[in-house]
Amino acid sequence: MQAHELATPYPTVTLETPADEAARVLTEHRRPGLIVVDRRGQPLAVLGASQFLKLLVPGYVQDDPALARVLDEKFADQFCARLAEKSVKDLMPKEPAPLPVVNPDDTVLEVAAIMAARRSPLVAVVARDDDGPRLLGAISVAALLEHVLPPQVS
Amino acid sequence: MQAHELATPYPTVTLETPADEAARVLTEHRRPGLIVVDRRGQPLAVLGASQFLKLLVPGYVQDDPALARVLDEKFADQFCARLAEKSVKDLMPKEPAPLPVVNPDDTVLEVAAIMAARRSPLVAVVARDDDGPRLLGAISVAALLEHVLPPQVS
Repeated sequence: MQAHELATPYPTVTLETPADEAARVLTEHRRPGLIVVDRRGQPLAVLGASQFLKLLVPGYVQDDPALARVLDEKFADQFCARLAEKSVKDLMPKEPAPLPVVNPDDTVLEVAAIMAARRSPLVAVVARDDDGPRLLGAISVAALLEHVLPPQVS
Repeated sequence: MQAHELATPYPTVTLETPADEAARVLTEHRRPGLIVVDRRGQPLAVLGASQFLKLLVPGYVQDDPALARVLDEKFADQFCARLAEKSVKDLMPKEPAPLPVVNPDDTVLEVAAIMAARRSPLVAVVARDDDGPRLLGAISVAALLEHVLPPQVS
């Protein structure tokens, strides 16, 4: 079993994707994050869903969550207005979560070793051919474990 | 909209759950982690899927992932044998990822503020009544964003 056989499609955005569109992609797929790729298709990082909260929750409430109790629900409208003005680039943290990249012919153990060493719940599988890098998909820890576990005896 | 309306069921285990059973729960639900609850039902922490990799990947390969290339696939059998001997307690990291807990009547903004302040992609919704704590479910960032975003105009 090689990495390309375990890879499944994963939602991606670029740094230029509007933030409101990125939020849509995220919620449609109900993933904990999006893979950010450059214009050539090379994965750059994972954009965690929690980065969107920076736009949703005012800074003074982030510092003191107890203040949230006294705010009304207007923040939701403001959030959508703020989202429309931003792009993925604005949402990226200063130190983005790195996304390990594996080769399509890497073995399951190689993928597992890279996940363990980099403490990453996700790896990207990238093919490199004459046209440049191409994201084949991603492998989550859960998908990898499912492959390694013996068939359920019921 | 209150926390209990946003909460959805989330797979849980206890510290005593056998590790192989926990791995099954994780892969069946394809979640990035499991909520670990104590015997009373109070959430203790999140057990990330990557914690299982510690049993799958030998220590010397974790230190040098390049060694994975020279190993054969027998490790998978050994992994299952090791899993069968362990419990969730053995998989917990020294500093487990904390799981913020919110009250059923907390507002969406309160939940968002706690997620942002604690940098957690997940919160547990716990009711407290005469019978003790009761986990109503969990709220992910993606679910919260979906609620806050305006309906898609197509």
